Amino acid sequence: MSNNNFKIVEGAISTPKGFQASGIACGIKASGKPDLALIYSDVACSAAAVFTTNKVIAAPVIISKEHIKAGKAKAILINSGNANACTGEEGMKNTKKTISAAARELEIDEKHILTASTGIIGKQLPMDKLLDGIKKAISEKSKEGASDAAQAILTTDTFAKEVVVKLETAMGDVHISGMAKGSGMIEPKMKSAHATMIGVITADIAMEPKDLDALLRNFCDETFNMLSVDGCQSTNDCVFALANGQSGISFDEVKKDFSAAFYYVCEKLTEMIAKDGEGATKLIKVNISGADSDFEAKKIAKEIVNSDLVKSACFGNDPNWGRVLAAAGAAGCSLDENKAVLKLQGKALFEEGKPVNFYASDMSETMKSKELVWDLDLNLGGGKATAWGCDLSYDYVRINAEYRT
Amino acid sequence: MSNNNFKIVEGAISTPKGFQASGIACGIKASGKPDLALIYSDVACSAAAVFTTNKVIAAPVIISKEHIKAGKAKAILINSGNANACTGEEGMKNTKKTISAAARELEIDEKHILTASTGIIGKQLPMDKLLDGIKKAISEKSKEGASDAAQAILTTDTFAKEVVVKLETAMGDVHISGMAKGSGMIEPKMKSAHATMIGVITADIAMEPKDLDALLRNFCDETFNMLSVDGCQSTNDCVFALANGQSGISFDEVKKDFSAAFYYVCEKLTEMIAKDGEGATKLIKVNISGADSDFEAKKIAKEIVNSDLVKSACFGNDPNWGRVLAAAGAAGCSLDENKAVLKLQGKALFEEGKPVNFYASDMSETMKSKELVWDLDLNLGGGKATAWGCDLSYDYVRINAEYRT
Repeated sequence: MSNNNFKIVEGAISTPKGFQASGIACGIKASGKPDLALIYSDVACSAAAVFTTNKVIAAPVIISKEHIKAGKAKAILINSGNANACTGEEGMKNTKKTISAAARELEIDEKHILTASTGIIGKQLPMDKLLDGIKKAISEKSKEGASDAAQAILTTDTFAKEVVVKLETAMGDVHISGMAKGSGMIEPKMKSAHATMIGVITADIAMEPKDLDALLRNFCDETFNMLSVDGCQSTNDCVFALANGQSGISFDEVKKDFSAAFYYVCEKLTEMIAKDGEGATKLIKVNISGADSDFEAKKIAKEIVNSDLVKSACFGNDPNWGRVLAAAGAAGCSLDENKAVLKLQGKALFEEGKPVNFYASDMSETMKSKELVWDLDLNLGGGKATAWGCDLSYDYVRINAEYRT
Repeated sequence: MSNNNFKIVEGAISTPKGFQASGIACGIKASGKPDLALIYSDVACSAAAVFTTNKVIAAPVIISKEHIKAGKAKAILINSGNANACTGEEGMKNTKKTISAAARELEIDEKHILTASTGIIGKQLPMDKLLDGIKKAISEKSKEGASDAAQAILTTDTFAKEVVVKLETAMGDVHISGMAKGSGMIEPKMKSAHATMIGVITADIAMEPKDLDALLRNFCDETFNMLSVDGCQSTNDCVFALANGQSGISFDEVKKDFSAAFYYVCEKLTEMIAKDGEGATKLIKVNISGADSDFEAKKIAKEIVNSDLVKSACFGNDPNWGRVLAAAGAAGCSLDENKAVLKLQGKALFEEGKPVNFYASDMSETMKSKELVWDLDLNLGGGKATAWGCDLSYDYVRINAEYRT
C-alpha cells in the first residue's frame, strides 16, 4: 500500500462532511471524566460493523448486531465506565431505554442508532445519569466538539486515538476519520471482529452498505484482528463504519485509493491501541513472511505477539530470540527451523538453524526503542501477516491487580 | 478417583525396587547448582514418553523420540541450565556424544538411554564439563542419592517436585515415584505432551510398553496438558515413564488400583508445577462441568487459566468473575450465559444470567488463600475438565525481563 494518494490531516471523527459529534461526562465514571460519546450524521449513512465473537456478549452488542442488519444508521452512542455485560434482562432493558431516549431526542428511527459500551462487567448502568447525559450529548453535538468524543470512550487508555485522512480526487476531496479506544482485554477476534476495543470510522464517501461491510471485514482481519494487548477477548468489542455520501463522490469512482486510505485508518488505529496497551512501554510489531499460507502466517504472528515470555523480554530489552522461535513453533503451523530467518530491528539473530553471533549489550541498547520489529521469514511459501502488540510490564500487573470489581 | 488403595509415602525417584539415581553439579549452571540428573534401572524397563508438539524442538527431544520407539530403556539423563534447542547440527552432535559417553560408562545400549535438557535456548552445551559430569553422575548413582536428581533438573523452580505412592496389594507392594521440574514457559501440549516441563515417573510394576504408553498418554491429556503457567509452549517438554517389573507384580493383576495411583502421581506433579509457576503467589484450579463435551470443557478451562486478566485479578485478590466469564466465552465453545453458574471457593458469584450479590471485601479476604478454585458449570451437557495454573505477579515480569540471553 505504498504510493498512496491520501494525506494525513488534522481533524476529528466529525471531519468528514455532514458529521457532528460530542463527548460529555454524565457520571458513569466515578472520576468525573467524560464517559458518553455521540457521533451523528445529518443524513442516513450506509453502515457496517464487526463485533466480538465471544459467546458472552454485552447487551449493546446484541442490539447493535440487530440494528446493523439493515445497513443504515444515523447515530452512534458509546458509553465508557460500564460494559453492560453479564447484566441479564435488566441490562437488555437498559440498552433499549438508552436507544429509545436517544431516538426520541434526535427525532430519528431507533433502528438508525448503533450503540457500544465499555468498562466494568456485571454492574447495571446508572440509568438516571445516562438518560440525562444523552440529552446533554445531543445538545452539545457539533462539528468542533468531536475530539471530546474520542476522550469519552476511553477506559484505562492513556491517550485518545484519532486519525484523519484526506483523499484528493479529480472530483474533490473525500475524508475518512477514525477513532478508537482499547488498552486491556484486547485480542479482538471480530467477525465481521474481537477485544474491548471500540472503533468508529466515518467517511463522506457514497457507497453501498455491502461494499462498506466487505471493506471493513477484510481490513479488520488484517488489522484489528491482528492486535493483541493481552490475549483476552472482550464481551464488547466492536468497530462501526459510517459512510454518508456528503462529499458527492462515490466509492466506485475511487475504489482503489479509498480502500488504501481506509486501510491506513484501520492500521493506524490498531497501532495506536497496541502502543497504549495497559502498562505498555513499547509497541511490538511482528512480521511473518514465507509461511505456508496467510492463515498460518497470522497464527504464528499472533502466537509470538501473545507470548508473555517474548513480551517480558521486550520489556527487559533482552534480545531473547529463542522465545520468539519457541512461540512460532507452538503455533501448530509449518515451520522448519533450518530454513527460518529471524530478525530484530532489521538485524538477523537466527538463520541456517543456528544463532547468529551478536553483542547482546549492543542489541539490548537497540531494544530501548519505543517500537520493536521482529521479522520472521519461514522461507516455505508465500504466506505473510503482521501482528501488533506490546510488552508486558510491572504496570500491566499493577493495573489489573488493583482494578476493583 | 476416590477410595484409592494407595498411600503417599516418603521417598524419591529411586524408591521403586531396582531403581537408582543421582544429581550432581557439572558446571553448566554458572551458579554451581546441581545441573545433571541420572535415573537408572538395574534391569531394562518398559518405557513410554510424551514430548512437546512445538515445531521447534530441541536435539534431546529428537533423539529421545527415536529411542522410545522400541519401548525399552535403562537410563534417563537430564541436564538443566541449557536446553540445547536452536543449536543446529552441533547441538545434535552434542546430544549424541552425551548419550555415547553415558552408554559406554554404564555398559548399556545407547538406545536404552533417554535424555532431556532444559535451560537457555540457543547456546551450545559445554561438552567438556558435561562429559566429566556424566562419569561423576554414574559413579554416584545410588538408592539414597535420588533426591539430588530432583534438585538437578530445576531451573527457575523454587522447590523440588517429588511424589511417591505405595500400592498395597495381596501380592505385595508396588511403588510409583514421580519427579518434575517446570516453572516458566509452561503450557505443555505434549502429544504423547507440552511446556519446559520435564517429568520422570518410575514404577516397579511389570507392564508392557504399550500399556504404559496408553496410561501415560491418557493421563497426560488430563493432567500435564491441562497445566499452564504462562501459555508458552517449550521446545523441550517431555515426560518419561519407566516400569521395571522388580516388584514381581504385573499391571494386569492390579490394573484399576495402579492406574488410580499413577494418575495421582501425574496430577500431583502437575499441581506442584502450577504452584511453583514463575512468580506465582497462588495456585489456580479451574473446574468446568456441564460442557457440551470434555473437549470443549478442556478448551474453556485452558482459556480461563491462561487469561492474564484473570491471573492478575487473582494476584490482586479481586473476585473479578466478569473476566472469568469473558475468558470462558472467548474459547469458541458452546456457552449460554443464562445457564452458567460460576463459583469461587464454593460460593456462587454469577447465575441465572446475572451477578449474585456478595461482599467484595469478604470475597477478597477469602481470595488470600494459596489455592483458588473456580467452578464453572455450563449446564449444557456432560463435558468436564480441570485446568491448573497460577496468578500473574510482578515477579513473573521481573524474572522474565531480567533473565538474560
